[in-house]
Amino acid sequence: MKRYEQFAEEIAALIRSGVLAPGERIPSIRQASRRYGISPSTVFQAYYRLEHRGLIVARARSGYFVREQARRLFAEPGVAAQRADPADVAVSELAFSVLDSLRDSDTVPFGSAFPAPELFPLSHLAGSMTRGLRGLSAEAITTAMTDGHVDLRRQILLRYALNGLSPAPEELVVTHGAMEALNLGLQCVTRPGDLVAVEAPAFYACLQVLERLGLRAVEIPVHPRHGIDLEVLAERLATLPVRACWLMSHLQNPLGASLDDSAKRELYALLKRHQVPLLEDDAYAELHFGARPPRPVKAFDDEGLVMHCGSFSKCLAPGYRIGWMAAGRFAGAVSRLRLMTTISPSVPAQAAIADYLQRGGYDRHLRRLRLALESQQQAMLAAADRHFPADTRITRPAGGYFLWCEFPERVDSLALFRRALKAGVSLAPGPIFSATQGFGHCIRLSYGHPWTARSERAMATLGRLLADF
Amino acid sequence: MKRYEQFAEEIAALIRSGVLAPGERIPSIRQASRRYGISPSTVFQAYYRLEHRGLIVARARSGYFVREQARRLFAEPGVAAQRADPADVAVSELAFSVLDSLRDSDTVPFGSAFPAPELFPLSHLAGSMTRGLRGLSAEAITTAMTDGHVDLRRQILLRYALNGLSPAPEELVVTHGAMEALNLGLQCVTRPGDLVAVEAPAFYACLQVLERLGLRAVEIPVHPRHGIDLEVLAERLATLPVRACWLMSHLQNPLGASLDDSAKRELYALLKRHQVPLLEDDAYAELHFGARPPRPVKAFDDEGLVMHCGSFSKCLAPGYRIGWMAAGRFAGAVSRLRLMTTISPSVPAQAAIADYLQRGGYDRHLRRLRLALESQQQAMLAAADRHFPADTRITRPAGGYFLWCEFPERVDSLALFRRALKAGVSLAPGPIFSATQGFGHCIRLSYGHPWTARSERAMATLGRLLADF
Repeated sequence: MKRYEQFAEEIAALIRSGVLAPGERIPSIRQASRRYGISPSTVFQAYYRLEHRGLIVARARSGYFVREQARRLFAEPGVAAQRADPADVAVSELAFSVLDSLRDSDTVPFGSAFPAPELFPLSHLAGSMTRGLRGLSAEAITTAMTDGHVDLRRQILLRYALNGLSPAPEELVVTHGAMEALNLGLQCVTRPGDLVAVEAPAFYACLQVLERLGLRAVEIPVHPRHGIDLEVLAERLATLPVRACWLMSHLQNPLGASLDDSAKRELYALLKRHQVPLLEDDAYAELHFGARPPRPVKAFDDEGLVMHCGSFSKCLAPGYRIGWMAAGRFAGAVSRLRLMTTISPSVPAQAAIADYLQRGGYDRHLRRLRLALESQQQAMLAAADRHFPADTRITRPAGGYFLWCEFPERVDSLALFRRALKAGVSLAPGPIFSATQGFGHCIRLSYGHPWTARSERAMATLGRLLADF
Repeated sequence: MKRYEQFAEEIAALIRSGVLAPGERIPSIRQASRRYGISPSTVFQAYYRLEHRGLIVARARSGYFVREQARRLFAEPGVAAQRADPADVAVSELAFSVLDSLRDSDTVPFGSAFPAPELFPLSHLAGSMTRGLRGLSAEAITTAMTDGHVDLRRQILLRYALNGLSPAPEELVVTHGAMEALNLGLQCVTRPGDLVAVEAPAFYACLQVLERLGLRAVEIPVHPRHGIDLEVLAERLATLPVRACWLMSHLQNPLGASLDDSAKRELYALLKRHQVPLLEDDAYAELHFGARPPRPVKAFDDEGLVMHCGSFSKCLAPGYRIGWMAAGRFAGAVSRLRLMTTISPSVPAQAAIADYLQRGGYDRHLRRLRLALESQQQAMLAAADRHFPADTRITRPAGGYFLWCEFPERVDSLALFRRALKAGVSLAPGPIFSATQGFGHCIRLSYGHPWTARSERAMATLGRLLADF
C-alpha cells in the first residue's frame, strides 16, 4: 500500500470509529505533515482521496472537516452472549420467508442479499460474452467443463498473486458461485451429526447448509468490528470435537467485521493445532472501502487446511453464478463432489468473465462500485440518524453493503419485519442469522441499492414502526 | 404421428430387432400398400424417410433392401440376475477413474458421456446469447435468479404441451442441468439410510448420488429393449420400505431401453399404490430416432408424484448447464433446496437458450442431430461386426448415442478398460453401472462423435484386445 493510501486509511478508520466526529475539523495539511512525519503532498493525496470517498469535505479558507451527513455517531452493537451447547439448526423456514419477501419489486429492498444489478458493468460483460463465446472452440467447452475455463483460472490465480497469495493451480476449483464452493467444501469434511464452529451472528446461508447436511452449530460470538472471538473459539476447539469451522474473516455478513492480520495468524495457528479445516467465505473480498483488500486467513495456510471461497456474484457479474475455491488439500475431493452434483459451472459465464478480466476494466469498475457503496452507506446512516430512535446501535463497516442495527430489547425484529413488509419495506430480521434464533432485537439493512427519495421514505417508515415498540 | 411416420417406425423396429435382416429385401411399395392397407404414396414417404435415415437402400429395378452396413445382427444382451438385498453403493472411485480417462483429447472418446460439441449449433447459440443479454434488464436478472427466466420457462412448458403434457407452471423448476434437478429431487424425498429403487444397469451418476447421500440401492433388472422389470419392481415395493425410485423410462442409459405406454401406465399405478415418488431422468428425451418423442411416465401422473427431469446439455447446449424439473408436489421443497445450494442456474445461459428456442430453429437442429447419431450408430455396429468376437451381444437402441456390449464371461471389462486406455481408446466398463459392481463382462460404447478412420481403428484395437481374453 502506498504511503498516502495508508494515511487515508488511518483517517478513515478514525472517522468510522468516531474518534473523529461528524463535523469535526481534521488536521490541516501542514499540521498533519508535521505530526505524522509525511510530506505535505502525501497528506494532500490522502485528503483528496477521502474527499472523493465522501468522508471529508474541504471548506474554502477553513480547512478539512469530517462530513456531517450523519451528525450523530451511533454506538456500536454489542457482542452476542456465549452459548456453551452445540445446537441443531432450524433456520430455513424463517430465512425463506425473508427471501420470498424480496420477490416483489415494489418492495424497498433493504432485506436484499445482492447489490442492485445496475451497479454492475452489464453491457461490458455482454460484450465479453460475445467475444468469449466466439473464442471458445468445441473442444474447449469439454475442457472447461472438467477443469474450468483455462483463461478464467489464470485470471483468478493472477488476482491472488496481486494480493500476495500464491495458491497452487491444482487447488483452484471453479464453482457455480461461492455458495456451491462452501457447500461442497463443508460436505467433504463432515458427516451428519458433526459439529461445525460458526459465527454468531452468521450468514443465514451458512446456517441453512448446516441444517441441510444435518450438522450441529457451535456458535462463536463476533465483535462488530474485530471479528470472531478467538478466546471463545480456542476454548470450544479444546473441549468439543469440532470438525470444521466456517467464517468470514473480512467484511463479515451481517456485521461487516474484519479480523486484522495478527488475529488471522492466531486463528490459523489455532485451527492448525486442532487440524480443523476452515471454510473461509470471502465473497466480499473486493468490496473494501480502503485502498487494498486485506489478505485472507488463506495467506497464512501452509498445510492446505483452508478452503478459501470467492465469487464474482457480489462484485462483478450477478446471476452469472461463477465462484471458486482455493481448496488446499481438499481440492480433489471437492472437484469430485462437484462432478457428482452439478458437473460444472456454466461454460459461457466462465468465458465471459475470463474475457472481461483479461481486458483490464475490472479495477476501474471496482473503484466506482466501492465509491457508490460507501456513499450509499453514508446516506443510510444519515437517514438512520434522522429517523431511528436515539438508543439504536449501528455498525459502520469498512466495506460491503450491510448495516447491522441493534435496538433496545423491547423491539421484536420479527414483528418489525412483518410490519415493515406490509408497509412495502423489506429487511433481514436478526433471528435468521442465528442457529438458536437469537438477535431478536437486531436487523440487517442493505444499502446495496442507489439511494433515492423512496429509500429515505422507507427509513422514515421503519423509524415510525420502531417508535411503536 | 402421421400415418407414414408410423409405418416408417414399424419397419425401423423390424430392422432393429432383426426380423428384417441386413441385406434382406423389404416389401415393394405396391406389396406394402396392399398388405398394410395404406396408400402407395404413404409407403413411398415412409421408405424415403428410412432411406434418409440410412436404414434402407433403394436399388434400381430391384426394390428396397435393408442396408448391409452391419451384415451380422448381434444378439441382444441378457437381463441382469435379480438381487434380493439392498446394497450400499460404492462406485465413485471407479467411475472417477473412467471420467479422468476422458480428459486426454488424444484418446478416442468411446467412454464419453456427452456427444461431440461440434454436433451442436454453437454459433447460433452464441448469437442467441448476444440477443438474450441485450434483452435482459437489470431487474430481470434478479427475477431470473429466483424464479427462472420467464421466456425460458414458457418455452419449456410449450415443449411439454407439444408432447401432450401440461404440467402446472408452478411445478416447473429451472435447474443447473438435469444432474442438479435429480440431486435436489432425491434429497427432498429421502433421509440417509433410505432405500431407493434403481435400474441394473443404471447410469453411474445416479449411483454416485445415492453414495453421496448415504442411500441404499434396490437394484431392479432392466431388459435391453423393454426397460425395467415391473414384476420385480412390484415385488420389491411390496416387501421393502423403498422411499423413492430413480429411472429412465426412455432411452435408458446405458441400455437404450424404453418402456412402452402401457408399461409406463402400469409403472405409475404401482408407484402410486405405494406412494413412492419417481425421479424420472429424461435427459435423452429429444434423441429418439423415430418421428415423435414418446411420452414420459410424467404423462400419467395425476398426483404430482413424478419429478420429471430434462436437460439441454445432451441435445442443444453442452456446457451451458441448463436443465429443469417438472417436480409435481415437490416443487416448493426442490426450489428451496436449490436456493440453499446453488441459488440459481446461470442467468445468461437461460437467456441464450430462451432466445434460441423462441427463434424456432430447434426442431431443425434436432432432426439433423438425430440423423447424425443414427448414422454413427450404424457405423459403430458395422465396425463391431468387422472386429468384435462372434459371440458379442450388442444393443441397437432407437435413439441416444450408446451401445451396450455384453461379452462372454471370460472377458474382464475392467482389464479391457485399462488395456484400451493404454492403447488410446476410452470406454465405460460395466461395473460403474452397478451398485454391486456387476456387469464385469459388459462395456458401454459411445457413438456420440462423428465417425472417422480413427474410430474404425479404435474398434479394431478393441477387437484385438477382446481376442486376447
